[in-house]
Amino acid sequence: MNKQKLVEQIRTKRSFLCVGLDTDLKKVPQCMLSEEDPIFAFNKAIIDATASYCIAYKPNLAFYECFGVKGWVAFEKTINYLRKNYPEQFIIADAKRGDIGNTSAMYARAFFEDLDVDALTVAPYMGEDSVTPFLNYKDKWVVLLALTSNKGSHDFQLTTDENGKRLFEEVLDKSQKWANDEQMMYVVGATQGKLFADIRKHVPNHFLLVPGVGAQGGSLEEVCKYGMTSDCGLIVNSSRGIIYADSTTNFAEAAGKAAKALQEEMATLLLAHKV
Amino acid sequence: MNKQKLVEQIRTKRSFLCVGLDTDLKKVPQCMLSEEDPIFAFNKAIIDATASYCIAYKPNLAFYECFGVKGWVAFEKTINYLRKNYPEQFIIADAKRGDIGNTSAMYARAFFEDLDVDALTVAPYMGEDSVTPFLNYKDKWVVLLALTSNKGSHDFQLTTDENGKRLFEEVLDKSQKWANDEQMMYVVGATQGKLFADIRKHVPNHFLLVPGVGAQGGSLEEVCKYGMTSDCGLIVNSSRGIIYADSTTNFAEAAGKAAKALQEEMATLLLAHKV
Repeated sequence: MNKQKLVEQIRTKRSFLCVGLDTDLKKVPQCMLSEEDPIFAFNKAIIDATASYCIAYKPNLAFYECFGVKGWVAFEKTINYLRKNYPEQFIIADAKRGDIGNTSAMYARAFFEDLDVDALTVAPYMGEDSVTPFLNYKDKWVVLLALTSNKGSHDFQLTTDENGKRLFEEVLDKSQKWANDEQMMYVVGATQGKLFADIRKHVPNHFLLVPGVGAQGGSLEEVCKYGMTSDCGLIVNSSRGIIYADSTTNFAEAAGKAAKALQEEMATLLLAHKV
Repeated sequence: MNKQKLVEQIRTKRSFLCVGLDTDLKKVPQCMLSEEDPIFAFNKAIIDATASYCIAYKPNLAFYECFGVKGWVAFEKTINYLRKNYPEQFIIADAKRGDIGNTSAMYARAFFEDLDVDALTVAPYMGEDSVTPFLNYKDKWVVLLALTSNKGSHDFQLTTDENGKRLFEEVLDKSQKWANDEQMMYVVGATQGKLFADIRKHVPNHFLLVPGVGAQGGSLEEVCKYGMTSDCGLIVNSSRGIIYADSTTNFAEAAGKAAKALQEEMATLLLAHKV
């Protein structure tokens, strides 16, 4: 999906919500466990209940890999279900990959050819040749880790170099030489608050994928205040707050309600920021 | 596997060779493609031919993921085959994972409980809480990226902070607060030459996993000169130079020969360094 279509979808749906499909069998309602493929059955119910309120889905690969082959089957079925029934949705495989060139090329093939997702999260530590193989696909995106939502983001991302530049700023600056805002987004955690203003000095037009609203405690209002652009420029993810909103047979309806509540808050914020 | 057993194996076999199972169907001999599971069949033949000369195997997850479910089946079969037939081998899943705590915990479960590999490569960018979930397993190892073998390693890993410390040094220093040399190793590319001396100032006793010998051009002699410890302290990986040594029906024998040649070079180096 190209940037224009993504922005159009945001304007039409009045939403920049991404639903994180971090599907954990220990947390899905008991009633789903008798299904033949409980992970996929749960995802399907969640997707059907939330698709009107969001513009993107982000399955987190760890939650599928931990079930080995069965998990991969459920992951592929989820992607195929989305592609067939909700082709307008932007699909982000949250895999945080990144390796030497020939290996990254294999990951790119896996996610962009065989699976046809729109975007993949990538870790920047290994530098340019670990990222560029993902950029050989038209209308596919790299979502590069910049400033993450977790406590450990302070360990290295905020270290300051000899010129006073922090590592996440170096990542933002250097990576812009590899791709423009039509192929690159950045992960910036909602918990980073005012640092969004600093981020926007480096990447005024890029989309930011923002985890950390909800269970991790980030403020949607603050994210928009410092991070929103005239094209919105934000995809805000919520996982646990939506998909585990209720643990009874009513889970899908509750997920829909939680997604709707966030969408309504987003519609207000889009209006306030004149998007 | 604990450190003592790993060192014992190195001393007994006079080898610190790791064979990288970067199995690419585009490169495996034509004769294997008619097998029901060509990836596993190729791996099995390579393992049987090389196991006497190496102490570790390192399947690279990208090469399996790119075949989706089929790839995962082949990966699991490879691990199970190794565990059953060569239980003394140290198995490293080269996956370069790392995510927020609850997600890293899922990856840890996948690789250390369900699959029972010995070690997993992990990217440090997200900091402490992305690494520590992997450390909750006795005798399992994190192999943290420090200074990689690729050109892109210069982009961020070699940037210098305000105190003159390079990022890879900061990674080495900080991560030692999370685990000692019984649970943590570091990836240092063979192409980094004399920087091994700098690495050893920070981690005098840790094992280093060293890719980049062979196809990538690193020198084994130089790696040993600057990186070897009294316990060896090195696991040197070769992938393409061994597994694609020959592309005919003779591939397994050729792989065995290539592994044997490296092992003999290693035996000489171990002797020279009095290990």
